[in-house]
Amino acid sequence: MGYAVTFGEVMMRLNPRGYERFLQADAFEVSYAGGEANVAVSLASFGRQARFVSKVPDNDIGQCAVNALRRYGVDTGCVLRGGERLGIYFVEKGASQRPSKVIYDRARSALSQARPEDFDWDRIFSDADWFHWTGITPALGGALPEICLDACRAARKRNIPVSCDLNYRKKLWSRERAGEVMSELMPYVNVCIANEEDAKDVFGIEAEDSDVEAGRLSREGFCSVARQLMERFGFDKVAITLRTSISATDNQWAGMLYTKEGVFFSPTYPIHIVDRVGGGDSFAGGLIYSLLAGSPPQDAVDFAVAASCLKHTIERDFNLTSVREVTELKNGNASGRVQR
Amino acid sequence: MGYAVTFGEVMMRLNPRGYERFLQADAFEVSYAGGEANVAVSLASFGRQARFVSKVPDNDIGQCAVNALRRYGVDTGCVLRGGERLGIYFVEKGASQRPSKVIYDRARSALSQARPEDFDWDRIFSDADWFHWTGITPALGGALPEICLDACRAARKRNIPVSCDLNYRKKLWSRERAGEVMSELMPYVNVCIANEEDAKDVFGIEAEDSDVEAGRLSREGFCSVARQLMERFGFDKVAITLRTSISATDNQWAGMLYTKEGVFFSPTYPIHIVDRVGGGDSFAGGLIYSLLAGSPPQDAVDFAVAASCLKHTIERDFNLTSVREVTELKNGNASGRVQR
Amino acid sequence: MGYAVTFGEVMMRLNPRGYERFLQADAFEVSYAGGEANVAVSLASFGRQARFVSKVPDNDIGQCAVNALRRYGVDTGCVLRGGERLGIYFVEKGASQRPSKVIYDRARSALSQARPEDFDWDRIFSDADWFHWTGITPALGGALPEICLDACRAARKRNIPVSCDLNYRKKLWSRERAGEVMSELMPYVNVCIANEEDAKDVFGIEAEDSDVEAGRLSREGFCSVARQLMERFGFDKVAITLRTSISATDNQWAGMLYTKEGVFFSPTYPIHIVDRVGGGDSFAGGLIYSLLAGSPPQDAVDFAVAASCLKHTIERDFNLTSVREVTELKNGNASGRVQR
Amino acid sequence: MGYAVTFGEVMMRLNPRGYERFLQADAFEVSYAGGEANVAVSLASFGRQARFVSKVPDNDIGQCAVNALRRYGVDTGCVLRGGERLGIYFVEKGASQRPSKVIYDRARSALSQARPEDFDWDRIFSDADWFHWTGITPALGGALPEICLDACRAARKRNIPVSCDLNYRKKLWSRERAGEVMSELMPYVNVCIANEEDAKDVFGIEAEDSDVEAGRLSREGFCSVARQLMERFGFDKVAITLRTSISATDNQWAGMLYTKEGVFFSPTYPIHIVDRVGGGDSFAGGLIYSLLAGSPPQDAVDFAVAASCLKHTIERDFNLTSVREVTELKNGNASGRVQR
Amino acid sequence: MGYAVTFGEVMMRLNPRGYERFLQADAFEVSYAGGEANVAVSLASFGRQARFVSKVPDNDIGQCAVNALRRYGVDTGCVLRGGERLGIYFVEKGASQRPSKVIYDRARSALSQARPEDFDWDRIFSDADWFHWTGITPALGGALPEICLDACRAARKRNIPVSCDLNYRKKLWSRERAGEVMSELMPYVNVCIANEEDAKDVFGIEAEDSDVEAGRLSREGFCSVARQLMERFGFDKVAITLRTSISATDNQWAGMLYTKEGVFFSPTYPIHIVDRVGGGDSFAGGLIYSLLAGSPPQDAVDFAVAASCLKHTIERDFNLTSVREVTELKNGNASGRVQR
Amino acid sequence: MGYAVTFGEVMMRLNPRGYERFLQADAFEVSYAGGEANVAVSLASFGRQARFVSKVPDNDIGQCAVNALRRYGVDTGCVLRGGERLGIYFVEKGASQRPSKVIYDRARSALSQARPEDFDWDRIFSDADWFHWTGITPALGGALPEICLDACRAARKRNIPVSCDLNYRKKLWSRERAGEVMSELMPYVNVCIANEEDAKDVFGIEAEDSDVEAGRLSREGFCSVARQLMERFGFDKVAITLRTSISATDNQWAGMLYTKEGVFFSPTYPIHIVDRVGGGDSFAGGLIYSLLAGSPPQDAVDFAVAASCLKHTIERDFNLTSVREVTELKNGNASGRVQR
Repeated sequence: MGYAVTFGEVMMRLNPRGYERFLQADAFEVSYAGGEANVAVSLASFGRQARFVSKVPDNDIGQCAVNALRRYGVDTGCVLRGGERLGIYFVEKGASQRPSKVIYDRARSALSQARPEDFDWDRIFSDADWFHWTGITPALGGALPEICLDACRAARKRNIPVSCDLNYRKKLWSRERAGEVMSELMPYVNVCIANEEDAKDVFGIEAEDSDVEAGRLSREGFCSVARQLMERFGFDKVAITLRTSISATDNQWAGMLYTKEGVFFSPTYPIHIVDRVGGGDSFAGGLIYSLLAGSPPQDAVDFAVAASCLKHTIERDFNLTSVREVTELKNGNASGRVQR
Repeated sequence: MGYAVTFGEVMMRLNPRGYERFLQADAFEVSYAGGEANVAVSLASFGRQARFVSKVPDNDIGQCAVNALRRYGVDTGCVLRGGERLGIYFVEKGASQRPSKVIYDRARSALSQARPEDFDWDRIFSDADWFHWTGITPALGGALPEICLDACRAARKRNIPVSCDLNYRKKLWSRERAGEVMSELMPYVNVCIANEEDAKDVFGIEAEDSDVEAGRLSREGFCSVARQLMERFGFDKVAITLRTSISATDNQWAGMLYTKEGVFFSPTYPIHIVDRVGGGDSFAGGLIYSLLAGSPPQDAVDFAVAASCLKHTIERDFNLTSVREVTELKNGNASGRVQR
Repeated sequence: MGYAVTFGEVMMRLNPRGYERFLQADAFEVSYAGGEANVAVSLASFGRQARFVSKVPDNDIGQCAVNALRRYGVDTGCVLRGGERLGIYFVEKGASQRPSKVIYDRARSALSQARPEDFDWDRIFSDADWFHWTGITPALGGALPEICLDACRAARKRNIPVSCDLNYRKKLWSRERAGEVMSELMPYVNVCIANEEDAKDVFGIEAEDSDVEAGRLSREGFCSVARQLMERFGFDKVAITLRTSISATDNQWAGMLYTKEGVFFSPTYPIHIVDRVGGGDSFAGGLIYSLLAGSPPQDAVDFAVAASCLKHTIERDFNLTSVREVTELKNGNASGRVQR
Repeated sequence: MGYAVTFGEVMMRLNPRGYERFLQADAFEVSYAGGEANVAVSLASFGRQARFVSKVPDNDIGQCAVNALRRYGVDTGCVLRGGERLGIYFVEKGASQRPSKVIYDRARSALSQARPEDFDWDRIFSDADWFHWTGITPALGGALPEICLDACRAARKRNIPVSCDLNYRKKLWSRERAGEVMSELMPYVNVCIANEEDAKDVFGIEAEDSDVEAGRLSREGFCSVARQLMERFGFDKVAITLRTSISATDNQWAGMLYTKEGVFFSPTYPIHIVDRVGGGDSFAGGLIYSLLAGSPPQDAVDFAVAASCLKHTIERDFNLTSVREVTELKNGNASGRVQR
Repeated sequence: MGYAVTFGEVMMRLNPRGYERFLQADAFEVSYAGGEANVAVSLASFGRQARFVSKVPDNDIGQCAVNALRRYGVDTGCVLRGGERLGIYFVEKGASQRPSKVIYDRARSALSQARPEDFDWDRIFSDADWFHWTGITPALGGALPEICLDACRAARKRNIPVSCDLNYRKKLWSRERAGEVMSELMPYVNVCIANEEDAKDVFGIEAEDSDVEAGRLSREGFCSVARQLMERFGFDKVAITLRTSISATDNQWAGMLYTKEGVFFSPTYPIHIVDRVGGGDSFAGGLIYSLLAGSPPQDAVDFAVAASCLKHTIERDFNLTSVREVTELKNGNASGRVQR
Repeated sequence: MGYAVTFGEVMMRLNPRGYERFLQADAFEVSYAGGEANVAVSLASFGRQARFVSKVPDNDIGQCAVNALRRYGVDTGCVLRGGERLGIYFVEKGASQRPSKVIYDRARSALSQARPEDFDWDRIFSDADWFHWTGITPALGGALPEICLDACRAARKRNIPVSCDLNYRKKLWSRERAGEVMSELMPYVNVCIANEEDAKDVFGIEAEDSDVEAGRLSREGFCSVARQLMERFGFDKVAITLRTSISATDNQWAGMLYTKEGVFFSPTYPIHIVDRVGGGDSFAGGLIYSLLAGSPPQDAVDFAVAASCLKHTIERDFNLTSVREVTELKNGNASGRVQR
């Protein structure tokens, strides 16, 4: 078994306790997370070897971020030290009609200032069997689009499958810039993960008859988006997460996997939310695990959605679940009865 | 823009953490609140100038209460110092079938011992454009009925609109005494805020065919109550909050504004409750803000109900929301999707 | 009024805060509980004299367990000191599709090493009017089956009614051993408390057409189980708790009391769960209280179910409710409106 | 062995965490304590039977106070229910040059409103072998001077030894009123406990050449005070605590026992303080325990001072130490080496 | 009475609880502070009108910073909104031989990006009677040296006394750049506050025979530094703080005020430290208060040192003490006896 | 650079917050530690590769223990899974005259039930350059004496230096049994670490004229002990820690290294203690690091003592310090001045 490598930023996450608003907080819970870091922790929790590649400042705060990943078994030997600061994001948990709020303070992070020559992708990928990154990484700017391209090429050279979660962030870059950069990177991607908005924001690809704001989802619409993505970039697979936000407390959650063999929808889970941040990353983590394990598409999307369903019940970004737990839910045991 | 002035008691609020019962608590969260103080904080949070008039003991505990209001931008220059103690109330948060519990220990508070000559209403109102108080203030006894009358007269003299939330508290005074005192004060009130029980408890005014305990609400009943209130006291407007308590965890919440031009009902929000205390005050705060901003009645009641809907999702009494947040909900975005 | 005596183990309960998983916890809330201890606290909270009989190690940890019971008014004069250690269990609170998890570390506890001669049942029962134990106590092994028999015989000798909650724990003993030991003890029991699984696990008694995992419950099935239990062992009454687990967050909860006069079902409560552990014990506590108070069967089961409904809204094992609170819910006030 | 009875007020104690000032606190640790309650807990912790007599309001807050005492083994069967409220005091922990601060909010407490006929002293003392109270109890006013007199007479009638800690509180009564009331009660007292200031404040009795503010203590001065007290009121023994306050963090602590057989000084302990509140009460508790155990005077004062030395290292008012722990320190082991 | 105006940065302070290291922390206490903000809070706590001038981002985090100052009575009407982020600093509390550690993450803060035209100094100073800033403000770079000059000139124009705490921070600018910028600003300063290292770092001015690292202080050395500062820049007064760091837990603390009339040394306080951060700012706050109150130099330095002695016993940066508390310590009561 | 391997038990450590006693605690801080685990973390913190060998139960609790070590960079690939439970110890922090208290609940731990064939020492030591264990490991009983012998022999075979901290625990085995087992293992040890009591308890070797209880230490005495140890077992080096316990809050701490070239004493540090547990282990960690780095004996003992001095200022068992921090203290900077 080789390493599943993920590449991206790890940040400090600060959130008030429980449902307190920022304006009330006199203490923050501190954790360390990020889209690709979250996927690495998911994979390590499932028993895969996972390696996280990034750059953090050479001080105690950077070390804390590394330690948070080591704690859950992620290999951090390829996390570089240096640069100015660790990015920070503040999370305020919403409830009922009050939305959760995320304030980013991530400019000039250590990773965003990294240079292409910092990374020795041949060494990083020497024992790898998967590579995952998200659209946030090139969006950080600086040399990161170029570094992502280096990484993708190095992966391709070794025939390592590449997955990418589009993850469009409008505060990081414009739609135009995103479309331009991502279009250059997509040809190296085997598995594309997105939600409907991402496809539209980054590539202008739209589903026909669904309306996400109103919470109405059409299966046909999602198939249309996936098909267009696949046709444009030649992906092997496109996975789309389907969220219906009834309120900040209650969501419905499902996923779709579009492959050359057909389209596969997971069941839909009604979720009473503990912490929604990291939900998409846990889907990616579950999907990669399943595909690496050789699961057929229906199993893969079912596993990914069950995994991310459980993530919504877990505090903070990391999806600290085991394969056994996910499999039990995937197999239909959603009753939540006490396990003694 | 002038000051919106509120007059009443500020107390220390002590509550166990989370869902702990009093009998389990070894620590209390401490905050400082009260019906009129809560309205002042609502208005300051909406960007209005708000002044709170009260009396607190001249010690660190009294100072803490003042600081809690200053923190959120309320002008406390007219909070007097002196008297014996700060009133205290203990709040135990309910869940599901277990009701929340409030134990008051407010007798002999600094405000309840204030004298009419303590307050220079001409100075207090010199730059004011609204005056709000609740039925709790005269209910505290001592000279407070007389002081409320002084305040109302001073407001009337300057043509400052006066709002009053009936807020009947059976532990503070009898229905008879309440009816007597409040009847004398009502002629100075422009906007009367109540719930169905208040109108009955204080003035014996009843809706015909609704039954609050069983959770059945009739629109006609509320109109009937409002019409009777308006006819008896000559209010400009009567606002009534409509709560259906499914359980301590789930409520439905709406409001009605009865005016000379007609009656306006807000939408009804199903709320998964974080903290229900201060819900009525946040309605008053939203209504006053809206009326001061010149909103038409439908907008005013919609804003007030959206504001207080959000309050139910916020810990402790204060409704720490912005006009933007309330407006988004009022405009129909209740999906609680994460804001990045 | 005499003492209601309960006999069993008290353990240290360690749980992470809120919804944190074990893997995230850097602190545990500590409390002390156990099936029979929980029943003693229920009874003391209802104003009954309650005596708990057990054995704890002669150190500060053992003393903490005793203090936890004394705090809520339980007589601990018959808790012996000595032995190796206090049993421990770890509780991780589930949410939505993620089940709660209990890890036991109870082997070689002080009680499990007790000797028959440690207990002077004549003295313990000298002023008693009820005796309650659960299937966990003999399951602890060592001399406990024999000690339970001693206790039952001593109770029978004094005509003290005996209740037993079957409470089968597969990690403590096999179905065969449980059936063997419990069959010897059942003839001394007047009131048998069980859920459908217990009856099957311990005695092989099954309901015909219900399927607990799928959440489908048939009233006839439960009657069938109760009737078979009654016929085999000659109980006066059989009480069965009926739980439908929609998710770890939402359950439905009801109970049945089968007597020689007929069968009585309680209403069903939909519960938004705060802490589910100790739910069954609180049913037993409510039932014993009611039966001791001479309530008719319908009242008794209604009181027991209302009591345990409230338990589900209270943190940790103990059902810290009053008779007044339970009675209000039993009488139909489930609206959860604030009590001031 | 009979009960050691103490009579006085139990209050809610609220203190910020650690060294936070009131002005910073957003949470209070809550405990329940009072001079005589503290002595009862000391005695129960030493294995004596201890009974606390008081009155608390008939609500959850009153019940919490009772539970806090039951937890540590105090008999609370003679704590009456009723009256308006539980007294409260706020404690801010000092450090270095910053003094600790206590704010009392105790007026109109349940006990202060008690009536003489509330207490059945014959029943209370039926199985008692000691009676302890402090000068705070009559200082609470209302009928309490009379009730104290009733209690003292009832104790005398049964030849139960009476101890009293003068404990002058200038915020509760004037020196004149204290002198008047206490002079009437002193004839019933066998063991008088005081510090130098108490004797001066209450009875105008002064030591000749010591100056407490400057921290200088003269043994002769303390003997002089004790001798005068003994001569005026005919006590069997006078115990005086000797505190030198170097700073809020570091104190020196010793005690003196003046008897008809001579005067006995304890060693002096330099203490690095964890919580100083309740220090005097823990001296009284240690002294009563020792005297009841028949210890000679030197042992008694040594035990009392060692006990209260340990109290200064324990959070909150209660001296939760065992006889073994006190004895080890009394025997000279003050090295604080880890006990495994 | 006019406003004492301070100008500088307010940052978010994050520190682990108690003595935890960064590497252990899973939560941070959050507060908001900064050299000049701390002085404003000192002055407001002493009852002076204090106005803080700064710039914070226009989001909840910026609002939290403003609220923290409003809470303690500081006028924040001149805090501008805009810019990228709020500066952050992380504080790890040392103990014994382990030093406290501060990690700054303050680059690109809102204030550091401010423009000269953002500040209307005529309006800001319209009702002012003092202006205070520190060397940190120009050290933030951007236009701040120019803005400081604008402010100093505007103050001089109105004859408002100006104080400056040199406060050299080597991570913000080089000695050369500091010397250059500060030399241009000093001519507008009336009261210069420094420690020995500042004078050397910024202006190359050294005391002759003291060695701060070894903890040896010579009065003559400090006089020499002050005299040189005064001669070079024409200050009215130079104040120097004298710290002897025995360990992270124990310091000695004193101050000197050098005036044209002579030199005045305060007493030296041995301090058992609670939180040392903000110690220098509290000296400045005490000094400004005293000078504004017209105290003679000996009183002024004594007050300033007593005030900052108390600060060392208070958690976090703000010196939340009253004039009465400082005066008591200044008058010699350092015993830390409980105040009831 | 190879791996420094340590072999022993990792336990769950539970301690109340701050200075709370067990009897007061309603929450425990949870961490995972043990003598040899602590040494591994020390070495990893110093930048060495460290491998910990042990056995933990195959459940979440065991995983938590592994994660705690991974977090700080320890290789846990040789921690086996299986067995019954994780050992637990409870720590109550002492203060002033009140000693710290440790209650062990470690019987039947996973490691104590391990079998010799569980460990493949050839693989474990394949890339190792040091082996460390303590007397606690064989004291756990079962097959552990034999397993220790296996390990020692395997290390000797590869010429890996072996260090052993005698660490006698009287609750685990008798002096006789300890002497017997340890005497068999000592011939494989190169560096023996002990305190005076250990040498006496395990081997009956005594210093002549020191008295540890009274805190008097004689250098000659320690040399005598070391010389005897060296002579009896042929160690290369003997290191002895010298603790003078003034109180639970204040200790003096030094060390001695006895080699064939002579004896080397470190300076003595007066320590104001934050957490004393793990102090000895941090000495061993510092010593091994220094010896591996080839430091001369004086440097080695100075580094070891400076490292463990810092440990006493850090919460919980792990010595989370860097080489830079230790070196600064070793070089004489003990002033604790803030590092910015």
